[in-house]
Amino acid sequence: MDRRKFFKKGTLLAAGGALFGNPISGLATTMDYDISVKGKRAKNIIFMVSDGMSSGTLALSDHFQNRILGHRSVWMSAYMDNKVTRGLMETSSASAIVTDSSAGSSAFGGGVRVANGSLNVGANGEQYLPIWQKMKRKGKKIGVVTTVTATHATPAGFNVNNNSRYSEPQIAIDYLNLGVDVVMGGGDEFFNEDKREDKRDLYEDYEDKGYAVVKTLNELKQTGKNKPILGIFNEGALPYQLDRKNTPELEKTIPSLADMTKKAIEHLNTSKNGFALQIESGKVDWAAHANDLGGLLFEQIQFDEALKVALEFAEKDGETLVIFTTDHGNANPGLIYGKTADKDFETVAKYKYTNEWILNQIDNSYSPNKVRELVDEYLGFEITSSEAHHILGYYSNIEKEEQGLYNYKHLPYEGFANMQKKHSSVGWISMDHSSDHVEVAAFGPGKELLKPFVKNTDLHYLMLQAAQIENKF
Amino acid sequence: MDRRKFFKKGTLLAAGGALFGNPISGLATTMDYDISVKGKRAKNIIFMVSDGMSSGTLALSDHFQNRILGHRSVWMSAYMDNKVTRGLMETSSASAIVTDSSAGSSAFGGGVRVANGSLNVGANGEQYLPIWQKMKRKGKKIGVVTTVTATHATPAGFNVNNNSRYSEPQIAIDYLNLGVDVVMGGGDEFFNEDKREDKRDLYEDYEDKGYAVVKTLNELKQTGKNKPILGIFNEGALPYQLDRKNTPELEKTIPSLADMTKKAIEHLNTSKNGFALQIESGKVDWAAHANDLGGLLFEQIQFDEALKVALEFAEKDGETLVIFTTDHGNANPGLIYGKTADKDFETVAKYKYTNEWILNQIDNSYSPNKVRELVDEYLGFEITSSEAHHILGYYSNIEKEEQGLYNYKHLPYEGFANMQKKHSSVGWISMDHSSDHVEVAAFGPGKELLKPFVKNTDLHYLMLQAAQIENKF
Repeated sequence: MDRRKFFKKGTLLAAGGALFGNPISGLATTMDYDISVKGKRAKNIIFMVSDGMSSGTLALSDHFQNRILGHRSVWMSAYMDNKVTRGLMETSSASAIVTDSSAGSSAFGGGVRVANGSLNVGANGEQYLPIWQKMKRKGKKIGVVTTVTATHATPAGFNVNNNSRYSEPQIAIDYLNLGVDVVMGGGDEFFNEDKREDKRDLYEDYEDKGYAVVKTLNELKQTGKNKPILGIFNEGALPYQLDRKNTPELEKTIPSLADMTKKAIEHLNTSKNGFALQIESGKVDWAAHANDLGGLLFEQIQFDEALKVALEFAEKDGETLVIFTTDHGNANPGLIYGKTADKDFETVAKYKYTNEWILNQIDNSYSPNKVRELVDEYLGFEITSSEAHHILGYYSNIEKEEQGLYNYKHLPYEGFANMQKKHSSVGWISMDHSSDHVEVAAFGPGKELLKPFVKNTDLHYLMLQAAQIENKF
Repeated sequence: MDRRKFFKKGTLLAAGGALFGNPISGLATTMDYDISVKGKRAKNIIFMVSDGMSSGTLALSDHFQNRILGHRSVWMSAYMDNKVTRGLMETSSASAIVTDSSAGSSAFGGGVRVANGSLNVGANGEQYLPIWQKMKRKGKKIGVVTTVTATHATPAGFNVNNNSRYSEPQIAIDYLNLGVDVVMGGGDEFFNEDKREDKRDLYEDYEDKGYAVVKTLNELKQTGKNKPILGIFNEGALPYQLDRKNTPELEKTIPSLADMTKKAIEHLNTSKNGFALQIESGKVDWAAHANDLGGLLFEQIQFDEALKVALEFAEKDGETLVIFTTDHGNANPGLIYGKTADKDFETVAKYKYTNEWILNQIDNSYSPNKVRELVDEYLGFEITSSEAHHILGYYSNIEKEEQGLYNYKHLPYEGFANMQKKHSSVGWISMDHSSDHVEVAAFGPGKELLKPFVKNTDLHYLMLQAAQIENKF
């Protein structure tokens, strides 16, 4: 019918030649970029990751906020106001179609795909300079803020080189040596002399280097903006937002992601050469790994609240690029078609605590009826006596203990989620990451550099180009 | 920290007032649009629906084409060439967060959300004029092409009013009365006098009205471009593309979606006032309902091949708007993280037939070993003897017969998919539609009208605006 070709040589049919560096993937690696064509420069960069956010997570959170809270999600609202560019992103790592969070963060952080488990270290030990170090060398202040341990894979991938993401005690030292200006999250065990194997008191070391060291929300609030900040608010990850909101002592002591984001920006923005800040809602991923619906929705909402802080700052500032995305899908949750789907989904508004919190309450002393009462009181739905028996089986080792990432106490997340699904109409494909292409959006100077379909590594070069920094280090 | 607000009044916090018609959804209904601001007019519109395409389906098809076929998907390639605009779309219906295909198509077709099951008929019987009728009244030729029955919900929603999507015998008459210029797909039972309850010979009626009536690929090829076309190639839906490709007699007689698309455009493009064509890859949805991985991937690839035909025509033509999207997610498939995930996924390249085809071969005479051989020969993986026994249980009514949409023969789709998952590492949340926001993209004149986040109904007005047609009928 026609002989003209819609597709440029090398995209649809990449077999013809390596026009793009990676002919099979057909996606540009964009190792080269042109900084001579200068638009407005991004003095500051805020890079926001809702870790492990499937497309379904974004939609569920938006439906929930729309139906229950009476407004759309911040993410979707930013789209509605037509102020952002957006793309789909392929998230594979060097070793697998489905990435883990360390290879995912390394793609953004180092600009090169590495194997799952690694932080900016290639198969033969090659080290790729992490982007926050590049920014630091250009005189910018740098920071990481997260709801999991401050030394976890996603914040670490922007800052350090290590062939294992599990080297968190070392990463806590690296941050100090690198001069990361803001470090906030959980992970007391990696800073506290009583918990570290080497008995080193990292809190003291950070203080000696001029940091304000804070461990509670109140201390965080009272910190001025002139000192760098080490804020470690818990052992392990911070509590789930849903549990925090319904536990007065946690609400008093533990900051929200938005609280930390505000404080981080206040300090970093004292830098005359600009700043670079990564913000992660890390427990979106953990909740997906646990198929924990209440956990998932409120962590995504917590991400939204932090995103609002960042976008409002950037709008006023005018020199800040905000990128918001995720590193990979996880569990692909979705509300499932059916006559009761809407009502089922609305029951989530009754959730007072996460599945994790509830399953942590249960022990061998519980009767089936007490389990049923617990579920009814805090999640608002009824499980059967037989289901309660089944749950208790996990506590008496009649049922095989669940493993699962971040399931440190071997709680019966999957067993319970299978019961919950009948009441919520929300399903999951698994308790692990997925291969989906994910959503990425940008606001502010440099947003025009975001193409409709990108590789995760492209964002590394996009940040450098937006900041008008040559990739020579 | 700052007092300026990022979000316009009425978007993030819609509670303040009904700035947008639907304050809760916060999304514009865009009943009004301005056609006085005239960009280039879309003389022709091609609207392409990969029915029931979750985000994961788009990604899996892209990964599969990238890894196995050596090029990216057409959909992603169009993004890479940066020639399209794109958005996320909320797909809810009037009655539910999760839509069915008739309410989904009615949103595009009638511009108003109706209840699941309905075709452009409101709760009180209100009828909304379908968009292809609007186009017809403006002198355009109109057409529908699908791989399911030509009278199925998605094609019907652009053309007819009916309070039930199941009125397919009537819809076959409606198309004739409305003068739909191209009707292609399956559904012989709705046109054939021997199969219709009213014994009416619709083939003859279409011929009497000047249509070329064709029933095989060969007849389709031999049809000239000057006559309107009724092409009905099967009873029920067309066979899955994967089965068709590996069954010589089907490949000879049944056209692909791309074959039909080419022919449809050839005829419709004889219209001096332009044309409006809807193309549906309907069995992406059916395969998702059946958790049939081979079926799903090759139906999505078949969509891609038809999309390529449409985009290449539109590129050459210069006056054609191509919209490509889906009506809703379904089953949210995804490749699941794990050491064997890549290898598992690559085994799909060995699939010779769909699960449906394989399960249709089995009957009570099969031994467990024969079932195992069948699966090994046509899908390339080994099931255990106990799994083969379990499968046979469905044929001897030991296992409870499966229901499920489009599972007319009550085949054990779910039972088999659970076994397949261990070998493919692809999981599903359910066998039904999901609430995810979905991908929508546009190419050609009017593409600039596509906003980053839209409601399904917005596309109705977008098409009218792009064609510079006032909404007065």
